[in-house]
Amino acid sequence: MITAVVPPLTPIVILARPQMGENIGAAARAMMNCGLVDLRLVNPRDGWPNPAALPMAAGGKEIIEKTTVFQSLAEAAHDVSFMVAASARRRDLPIKSADPRAAANMLWEYDGITPKAPAISAKVVKGGLRTAMLFGPEASGLDNDEVVLADVLVTVPLNPTYPSLNLAQAVLLMAWEWRMAMHLATQPAKSEVEVLSSQMIMPVEQLASIEEREFFFHRLENGLDEGGFFTVSDMATAVKRNLRAFFTRAMPSSQEISTLHGVIQALMRCRK
Amino acid sequence: MITAVVPPLTPIVILARPQMGENIGAAARAMMNCGLVDLRLVNPRDGWPNPAALPMAAGGKEIIEKTTVFQSLAEAAHDVSFMVAASARRRDLPIKSADPRAAANMLWEYDGITPKAPAISAKVVKGGLRTAMLFGPEASGLDNDEVVLADVLVTVPLNPTYPSLNLAQAVLLMAWEWRMAMHLATQPAKSEVEVLSSQMIMPVEQLASIEEREFFFHRLENGLDEGGFFTVSDMATAVKRNLRAFFTRAMPSSQEISTLHGVIQALMRCRK
Repeated sequence: MITAVVPPLTPIVILARPQMGENIGAAARAMMNCGLVDLRLVNPRDGWPNPAALPMAAGGKEIIEKTTVFQSLAEAAHDVSFMVAASARRRDLPIKSADPRAAANMLWEYDGITPKAPAISAKVVKGGLRTAMLFGPEASGLDNDEVVLADVLVTVPLNPTYPSLNLAQAVLLMAWEWRMAMHLATQPAKSEVEVLSSQMIMPVEQLASIEEREFFFHRLENGLDEGGFFTVSDMATAVKRNLRAFFTRAMPSSQEISTLHGVIQALMRCRK
Repeated sequence: MITAVVPPLTPIVILARPQMGENIGAAARAMMNCGLVDLRLVNPRDGWPNPAALPMAAGGKEIIEKTTVFQSLAEAAHDVSFMVAASARRRDLPIKSADPRAAANMLWEYDGITPKAPAISAKVVKGGLRTAMLFGPEASGLDNDEVVLADVLVTVPLNPTYPSLNLAQAVLLMAWEWRMAMHLATQPAKSEVEVLSSQMIMPVEQLASIEEREFFFHRLENGLDEGGFFTVSDMATAVKRNLRAFFTRAMPSSQEISTLHGVIQALMRCRK
């Protein structure tokens, strides 16, 4: 029985004919945020290395230093078994399409190492293939000859009046969806009670506005100040903050806020 | 019975003490991509308007032109009933936390207008409150006094060695999750067959019928038999089955089947 824990292979990011070094750097940062490591460029407009990339890469510096450059998309993707191509527009091509979430789940199907039914067996049953996400140049996007090299066209259900994502934003969106696919696939399943209690949604019509809450907090804090609640003034800030967190966490309704005002009023009356 | 179609309220984006105009502009672009419209700034470092914002806003120009500025977070959020605060780090605060997907679903619970059980009734049963997403300054993130004004702290399961997102990337991530929450909530539930067929760009009515495919397979197999393709007859059944699986997996259209007939015909002509 195979019991070794093998880390998943992370998707390669391929930028076809990228134009601006800043975007390449920002894409590397987004990759680093999501745990991706392998960046490949096909014919970058301004050559490589590009001094504009590093400042925008921030913590993704090492990704930029290890970035490789290729003369053609086919060369850049030579070791890839499953590739998704991001596009702002639909194509008249007989190719499968998917939204980013579905595409990320497919990527994870191929590159992830998921021990199936871990309670019964740690047998590694799938995954371990190289996958890639492909993005086109800023101005024009991918051309159709590039798209048909991919297995799946990713179409993003964005605002139809302005669906054009910045290149690094597109990379983040896909890298993030892959990371969430991994996160959800590798986390232990939660019971329904756990899911419910982690959300705790109140009936919406009753929620107090932030203005109502603020007014209450000020009233409460004034009352406490007047009453000499904060004997050690150093602690006052932290104590007030924790009180606010407490009341906010309870998600008070307008009615409850009004009741709490009554409580303060009543208590202050007693004091006099 | 209420049957009016009310558009959902979209979350307000509040940037607390943002530093760089470029990031404010890029955040507006990301908002526009996801259909959000209301951007509010609390004490932007370099004042407002900021000439660095507009070039990065691209199609989000109008959002920048309508951006409003406030002196305090409480003022910026005065009309908000449910607010989530994005943070790269966990806090030692007694506040609920959620990942971006769960947080986006909560936002949608409050701001979205979802006709429940549309098959039975178009009654609008929930939603319609103002919600907000709160983001801190680039260098330091939100301080704890800002976080406790929010209902939920959003912690993002990013690469623990470098979880720090660029400000505009953080805005995109949350805005995108909200958009997907809306997208998934407002789409009619699909059958499994529809989900499968929606992953093909090809209109499903063009898919070749099983009869057309069968006819093609027979023709192909006969051609192979005639050409002595199956030298070991034991293997013929399995090889034929695998060929069928290959062609079926491609989900050929009627037109493509007809083209394939032409291919077989042409190849057989050559053989003679």
